[in-house]
Amino acid sequence: MLVPTFSDILAAHNRIRPFIHRTPVMSSRLINNILGAEIYFKCENFQRVGAFKFRGATNAVLLLRDDEKRRGVITHSSGNHAAALTLAAVTAGVKAYIVMPDNAPAVKKNAVAGYGAEITFCRPTLQAREDTTARIIEETGAVLIHAYDNFNVISGQGTAAAEMVEDLPGLEIMVVPIGGGGLMSGSVTAAKAISPGITVYGAEPLNANDAWKSFTSGRLVPSENPKTIADGLLTSLSERTFSIIRDKVDNIFTVKEESIIESMKLIWERMKIVVEPSAATTLAVIKEYPEHFRGKKTGLILSGGNIDLQKLPFSQAS
Amino acid sequence: MLVPTFSDILAAHNRIRPFIHRTPVMSSRLINNILGAEIYFKCENFQRVGAFKFRGATNAVLLLRDDEKRRGVITHSSGNHAAALTLAAVTAGVKAYIVMPDNAPAVKKNAVAGYGAEITFCRPTLQAREDTTARIIEETGAVLIHAYDNFNVISGQGTAAAEMVEDLPGLEIMVVPIGGGGLMSGSVTAAKAISPGITVYGAEPLNANDAWKSFTSGRLVPSENPKTIADGLLTSLSERTFSIIRDKVDNIFTVKEESIIESMKLIWERMKIVVEPSAATTLAVIKEYPEHFRGKKTGLILSGGNIDLQKLPFSQAS
Repeated sequence: MLVPTFSDILAAHNRIRPFIHRTPVMSSRLINNILGAEIYFKCENFQRVGAFKFRGATNAVLLLRDDEKRRGVITHSSGNHAAALTLAAVTAGVKAYIVMPDNAPAVKKNAVAGYGAEITFCRPTLQAREDTTARIIEETGAVLIHAYDNFNVISGQGTAAAEMVEDLPGLEIMVVPIGGGGLMSGSVTAAKAISPGITVYGAEPLNANDAWKSFTSGRLVPSENPKTIADGLLTSLSERTFSIIRDKVDNIFTVKEESIIESMKLIWERMKIVVEPSAATTLAVIKEYPEHFRGKKTGLILSGGNIDLQKLPFSQAS
Repeated sequence: MLVPTFSDILAAHNRIRPFIHRTPVMSSRLINNILGAEIYFKCENFQRVGAFKFRGATNAVLLLRDDEKRRGVITHSSGNHAAALTLAAVTAGVKAYIVMPDNAPAVKKNAVAGYGAEITFCRPTLQAREDTTARIIEETGAVLIHAYDNFNVISGQGTAAAEMVEDLPGLEIMVVPIGGGGLMSGSVTAAKAISPGITVYGAEPLNANDAWKSFTSGRLVPSENPKTIADGLLTSLSERTFSIIRDKVDNIFTVKEESIIESMKLIWERMKIVVEPSAATTLAVIKEYPEHFRGKKTGLILSGGNIDLQKLPFSQAS
């Protein structure tokens, strides 16, 4: 099973640089005071389409052969990867087929449609998604770009961590959210290549702790009916991402739902930036396990900022 | 009546520079596409205490004589100026007395208390606020630092516009929210000194349109029972700020409550930053009066980002 090396990530970075934002690193002395750590936030919520996913999708699209570009790309997703793949494809003049469950929130349907995808709706089951995707591939020859179980996608996702480690000399710890493991696979590969002494921790919701179970048991455990507000972290690891995470990540910490919400509120209130719950799991790790971070120069990847403002967990009726 | 010149603003900038953030200028190609303009946002929501007010308060505190510093500073406010004055004072080792109406939201009480103010609560009337303030001044000799009717405060507020005009060569229009007029007085003075051809517009809620009435009638009209979600813009101009605005501002545009809310939502969703309603009045002007901005390089001052996340205007119950 092929996994990317740091040179793949460097090549991806050179390839996608003209299309992505080099996102800023922010910090908050108030949050540092509250948590007793020295925390830096890599703001992928400011990335195009509002999430790091645009990095990997752009890398995958740019690496298509000409005949593949003519046939188009396809994925089944209702989330950030669908929007990212669509924008990356449309920017390159490539058609994007997106398979979405028919119960996806209107805000996500509209976002993906707005970027120019050809959307096919299906029943909200994995079977229906896979069947519909297979049918469209048969009809069109479109190339499947998986959200995380894809060499080129993982290489692209690693570029955010590469930028952060470059921008923050002496960084001691990096904390990265784990869903399907694409962001983490790229991040840990880049971070440990640039800075071999760095410690890399995963952040995962307790209610979707398949990566923690897999990591601690040593064998791939799929996610079972996960229920978490961190809707970007519902997916299970693949064999590929698990193999990288098992080999390179130092530990995975699970966090409670209320910690995720409190951490998200802290980021919004104190830093004045909008992040989605999946991103806030990283700060929640520091809240729940402060002893690992006290006085340490720690970088968190804020993975995205796409959230329905009409359904916020800390809002009362108005 | 003494009004600051550009050299007062330059001197203020040199004085406060070690204490303030030089806030970033952001832009969004999506918002530009939606509104057909070239818009730049000066992010004073990222300023310390979450609002531009920290600039003016810091300048005023740094200009106190030693005997004044020993007596402390005082203001009556429940908003951003109270927090700003407190942090500026406490940073300089000066005591801050804040008079607040007893019905101020808990989130604001906590913020001001957290910065270290000595808070005195009073009944929520202007008379009670002024009486309580006068009594504390008599008892302590504290120096009143008015939120906007103050030469040194206005000089400090002008530094944000100075930074924006420096950072954006060729800026054609600047839009600035108007409440008491302190930010606008400083901004228009700085902008027209650095770039004499620039057009400067005020943004004001239709439901708190005292500055528009004053500007168009040529005489100071106080605010009468204003009701707007833009809680930073409820105050009336003073003779001092009115004289500057009347002489230098090109026009004032009023905006509807629903435009303010829609503009705020657009900024949160598309730029992934948290701004308060008062800041969003600037974008609301472009939404309501697009013909003045089409194709023009336009800078908006996002005045602050302090908002109660539990009472958002676009949120349903969760």
